Amino acid sequence: MSDTAPAAPQPIFTSDNTAGACEEIVRAVSAAAAGQDLPYGADRSTDGVRARFAEVFECDVDVLPVSTGSAANALSLAALTPPWGSVLCHRDSHINTDECGAPEFFTGGAKLVGLPGDDAKIDADQLRAAAGRKAGDVHSVQPSVVSITQATETGALYTLDEIRSLGLVAQDAGLRVHMDGARFANAVAALGCTPAELTWRAGVDVLSFGATKNGTMTADAVVVFDRTLTPELSFRAKRSGQLTSKMRFQSAQLDAYLTDGLWLRNAAHANAMAARLGDGLKALPGAELLHAVEANILFCRLPQPVVDRLLAEGFAFYHDRWGPGVCRFVTSFSTTEHDVDAFLTAVRRLTT
Amino acid sequence: MSDTAPAAPQPIFTSDNTAGACEEIVRAVSAAAAGQDLPYGADRSTDGVRARFAEVFECDVDVLPVSTGSAANALSLAALTPPWGSVLCHRDSHINTDECGAPEFFTGGAKLVGLPGDDAKIDADQLRAAAGRKAGDVHSVQPSVVSITQATETGALYTLDEIRSLGLVAQDAGLRVHMDGARFANAVAALGCTPAELTWRAGVDVLSFGATKNGTMTADAVVVFDRTLTPELSFRAKRSGQLTSKMRFQSAQLDAYLTDGLWLRNAAHANAMAARLGDGLKALPGAELLHAVEANILFCRLPQPVVDRLLAEGFAFYHDRWGPGVCRFVTSFSTTEHDVDAFLTAVRRLTT
Amino acid sequence: MSDTAPAAPQPIFTSDNTAGACEEIVRAVSAAAAGQDLPYGADRSTDGVRARFAEVFECDVDVLPVSTGSAANALSLAALTPPWGSVLCHRDSHINTDECGAPEFFTGGAKLVGLPGDDAKIDADQLRAAAGRKAGDVHSVQPSVVSITQATETGALYTLDEIRSLGLVAQDAGLRVHMDGARFANAVAALGCTPAELTWRAGVDVLSFGATKNGTMTADAVVVFDRTLTPELSFRAKRSGQLTSKMRFQSAQLDAYLTDGLWLRNAAHANAMAARLGDGLKALPGAELLHAVEANILFCRLPQPVVDRLLAEGFAFYHDRWGPGVCRFVTSFSTTEHDVDAFLTAVRRLTT
Amino acid sequence: MSDTAPAAPQPIFTSDNTAGACEEIVRAVSAAAAGQDLPYGADRSTDGVRARFAEVFECDVDVLPVSTGSAANALSLAALTPPWGSVLCHRDSHINTDECGAPEFFTGGAKLVGLPGDDAKIDADQLRAAAGRKAGDVHSVQPSVVSITQATETGALYTLDEIRSLGLVAQDAGLRVHMDGARFANAVAALGCTPAELTWRAGVDVLSFGATKNGTMTADAVVVFDRTLTPELSFRAKRSGQLTSKMRFQSAQLDAYLTDGLWLRNAAHANAMAARLGDGLKALPGAELLHAVEANILFCRLPQPVVDRLLAEGFAFYHDRWGPGVCRFVTSFSTTEHDVDAFLTAVRRLTT
Repeated sequence: MSDTAPAAPQPIFTSDNTAGACEEIVRAVSAAAAGQDLPYGADRSTDGVRARFAEVFECDVDVLPVSTGSAANALSLAALTPPWGSVLCHRDSHINTDECGAPEFFTGGAKLVGLPGDDAKIDADQLRAAAGRKAGDVHSVQPSVVSITQATETGALYTLDEIRSLGLVAQDAGLRVHMDGARFANAVAALGCTPAELTWRAGVDVLSFGATKNGTMTADAVVVFDRTLTPELSFRAKRSGQLTSKMRFQSAQLDAYLTDGLWLRNAAHANAMAARLGDGLKALPGAELLHAVEANILFCRLPQPVVDRLLAEGFAFYHDRWGPGVCRFVTSFSTTEHDVDAFLTAVRRLTT
Repeated sequence: MSDTAPAAPQPIFTSDNTAGACEEIVRAVSAAAAGQDLPYGADRSTDGVRARFAEVFECDVDVLPVSTGSAANALSLAALTPPWGSVLCHRDSHINTDECGAPEFFTGGAKLVGLPGDDAKIDADQLRAAAGRKAGDVHSVQPSVVSITQATETGALYTLDEIRSLGLVAQDAGLRVHMDGARFANAVAALGCTPAELTWRAGVDVLSFGATKNGTMTADAVVVFDRTLTPELSFRAKRSGQLTSKMRFQSAQLDAYLTDGLWLRNAAHANAMAARLGDGLKALPGAELLHAVEANILFCRLPQPVVDRLLAEGFAFYHDRWGPGVCRFVTSFSTTEHDVDAFLTAVRRLTT
Repeated sequence: MSDTAPAAPQPIFTSDNTAGACEEIVRAVSAAAAGQDLPYGADRSTDGVRARFAEVFECDVDVLPVSTGSAANALSLAALTPPWGSVLCHRDSHINTDECGAPEFFTGGAKLVGLPGDDAKIDADQLRAAAGRKAGDVHSVQPSVVSITQATETGALYTLDEIRSLGLVAQDAGLRVHMDGARFANAVAALGCTPAELTWRAGVDVLSFGATKNGTMTADAVVVFDRTLTPELSFRAKRSGQLTSKMRFQSAQLDAYLTDGLWLRNAAHANAMAARLGDGLKALPGAELLHAVEANILFCRLPQPVVDRLLAEGFAFYHDRWGPGVCRFVTSFSTTEHDVDAFLTAVRRLTT
Repeated sequence: MSDTAPAAPQPIFTSDNTAGACEEIVRAVSAAAAGQDLPYGADRSTDGVRARFAEVFECDVDVLPVSTGSAANALSLAALTPPWGSVLCHRDSHINTDECGAPEFFTGGAKLVGLPGDDAKIDADQLRAAAGRKAGDVHSVQPSVVSITQATETGALYTLDEIRSLGLVAQDAGLRVHMDGARFANAVAALGCTPAELTWRAGVDVLSFGATKNGTMTADAVVVFDRTLTPELSFRAKRSGQLTSKMRFQSAQLDAYLTDGLWLRNAAHANAMAARLGDGLKALPGAELLHAVEANILFCRLPQPVVDRLLAEGFAFYHDRWGPGVCRFVTSFSTTEHDVDAFLTAVRRLTT
């Protein structure tokens, strides 16, 4: 540690998974701990969660709490593709690059086909071409699902029209539609359209509903719009070790998360912190913002000595994966204005 | 509800998974919620957990937190058998009857071979015979692992000598040894031997360390004695959706669970409540205790009208799976003397 | 070799898979070798094979040639059960004991549930009980298929009524029906009922049609009565390495096999040779026939010294798997009266 | 058919899998049909096959006959990568594009990573980069195998030096090496180096030894240089339905194939026919040869009207997959000079 390093820990911008859990979630979990209740989702709170999701999504849905986003994605895909199917996704999507083959494992060996596209977004024309490739040819895996990440891995957003376009291509080609919503709340908060519009009304069959990055502890969920898939998903969830006996602890988190708009408040805050960071960086001569800030992820190029210095001072962010000086910053519900400003102050000091 | 049913909810004896979480765990989880920390086990608490397990088991171990006991079992078995192997287990074991094929899924299609035996305990001679069957024959799955449940699904305990015998048979036959310790704490508390004696010193390679039934919320763990298996287990855990980003919440639970003997206190209490229930029932003319009470599960035969009446009064327990009038009662850390006595009072009233 | 061992090789009765191929098959394969033709079943002969099967089974069927009976069974089961399903079968069935987990592998980890029953035959009541067990319970694999071996692994035959009964139980319970017909020809030849009666008219969805043991070289087939399964089976066959480019060589074998009743002539001959052997043994005081001879497999108890002596003289048969002195003899299309009589002569000499 | 179409069938150049079987193979199969013999590779001929391979490859090897090249590839890969591994291969390789996910199925869900490169050849630098990507990162599949196709899917050949370079990269990175030798004979015949040099001496662990395209009926083989893999491969072969009972019929083909250099004679002939075709086309003004002809596959651009006319006259070849007018021609052991010349005559007539 150099002598300029502050005593208090510096904020971490590597990912929104570095946040803890928000107060409302903690209180809900604590309250859920008391008393006896039935296991495996037969408890008093789990039914309420389903109703809560139905309200948020304006339709009957089924909900399977899971312990990770990878489990949500892999389970969803397994219910949407046969083992000889292919999953069309962006080549930089989390399912393709960061889940150690979980989709391949859960699906019994389906193939992920990575499509190109700016900002980790799938282009409708690319999807159309891929969806028709070798359809019906017994020598080839069969295009079966498209998986859309909203917000994307780079923090970009599909517009509602873009989602609808992908949905129509999928419909035409007979593909099922999965949405990886690890940061779904950030997308809803930023786009100002309804959860229903972004999902089932645009053709989404199953949603990986992320909550952990946005305030819960270890509770995410599979939200099922095509409810004919629910029995299969239930067996697959049990069989993959995802059916918890004390489901009440997941349900309590999800319930609190959806109560009184907590999920959208948290997400809006995270987005606002990214915007504040982006605005601050834009004003600095040495920093070059690489994209418009749409959700809670921001890419910026900084002079390498500045990067090195920031790291030495204890700020944490990813910086060595995208080219010289390109840094990624992720904000969360727990990021404070003080965190952002402390960072901006340091950059300003180092660049001017 | 009949007029004799009390206003307050009656205690549930169906399973120890109907309990909530104990106070120490709730406090630990709440404390873990504050501040930023690194994900995927790189946080400040996870390393401490490993040290805590090492201390409890008197040897270096690796620890993988998981969200369910099924995940712990299936992951462990997948690291211990090739897909063409067989897992020798009791035919009534949880892995064979209650996990919807999770072991088959995680292992890539290994075969579970159910062995007979009283009290859901594997007999050493049966194991020896099964271990040699078709070994080396390419037409048959190959005996690869023995899985021992301690305490068993019926609440019986293997003595230390019995565990050692099975370990020696396994060693002779070249089998790896897995222990399903969903109720490991109850066994340790009851037997008065050390965790080390019951596991690696007797030849156990990997332990499914249950905690959820005994006080935590949704945290169990795989404890790895043969640490050469850890890299494989780590990839398998990620790939099966078991690697949580906010592992601190699982680690906090496991840490508190092992601190100051909480796990053994909880288990001893559960065992004591079962003993109290057993002693009470033994004294009643209409009740017939079917086994000695060894841990926290108890089987008892009651006259069918008494069973019906108890259910009508709101007491909950399983009763229709083992023959006429045979009931199963499970106690937990949260069972109170009052719960037990209220139940005994009701039985006494109905049988005399 | 002792001095009483004859110069010519003694007949082998270990299995009907020790036979070569019959002349008609050899001629067909030789004829198929000439000229160019399209691959993967688009050749001139493959369509004819389908027609030939349709004629034999009196209905439209689809046919997938495969290289082994294990592949036929495992492919069929994979199309009939989800990974979380169970396959109800006799505990001594080939799929359960002799395929090294092929069904588990192809199905993605379904569970084989072995049922008891004399002569390796499934009892309808046992099936009914097993089919209802834990149906709908997410903690358990779900009964999905019954697999019937006709003729059984011990050479016994289900009567037509027995097959129909199993079919009705399956229908009531919502089970799909698979028939392992490794020795289907022997059953048809012996029972005198039609292939249609024994299969789809009794509820069979998919048949593993064995031919290799009865005269072909390496060609068996999956015969699909429920043709909605064919697309899935086709992808699964390709994906499991069973779609041959030069399918004409398999089709030529199957075509010849079904032409002019060759398959039934071969099977009738094998059955007759077993009957001759049985009749001969019955007449010998030292030999005890253990079952009526129904197809081409025969179990007989002989004095151990006689067994040892026969083996020393070069006769081959299995003898050490079923109890003291119990021997199994299997005849085939290539077994000659001379083979049988030579063996009987030896037994007579040794027992009298 | 137009009036210019000849009466006799025109030669097919779509693939070498349109050929039948060569005479020596037919004779060997016919001879193998007689008499009884032991099953599953315990027959008299199978041991001889192993010896024959050992001689050809100048080292002890194990040999598993299989029914298809897809089975050979998928089995080999399953023994070389764990389920969480990745297989580095050319993006146009057969395993990646034409096996309907067989490698994913057999490996339990490993990931195929397609690398770019001219002529379907993997570039050593690309391999080195891919081999190091995310090694040790639990979030990613782990580079485990490189699969090299020799000759490639476009008929190009790796030089011996190129194979050695890839082998060294693999060795440095800890990758295992698989060779897809569907057209291995064509490569050996063309390169003039020994089978040993092209395989184990360059670091190849397992070879998919193709024979079907070059004269056998349905017999290919896995040739195992790293013999520690043989037990695993044997169980996997059985379990995937590839262990034939009458293995003698495969062994007879493979034995004849390797006897007196038949395999290399056949391949040299196929290569010569491609060369003759190439030389002929080069001399025609309207035809543009797109690559040097290295083995038995040739790509050529022809005016679209000429393509249409050739097809109308009954010549068969692929033409609509690679851009306007680009046609692929494949020759085989059964292609005659007359076939080639008849085609050249037609092209000459249509282009001049």
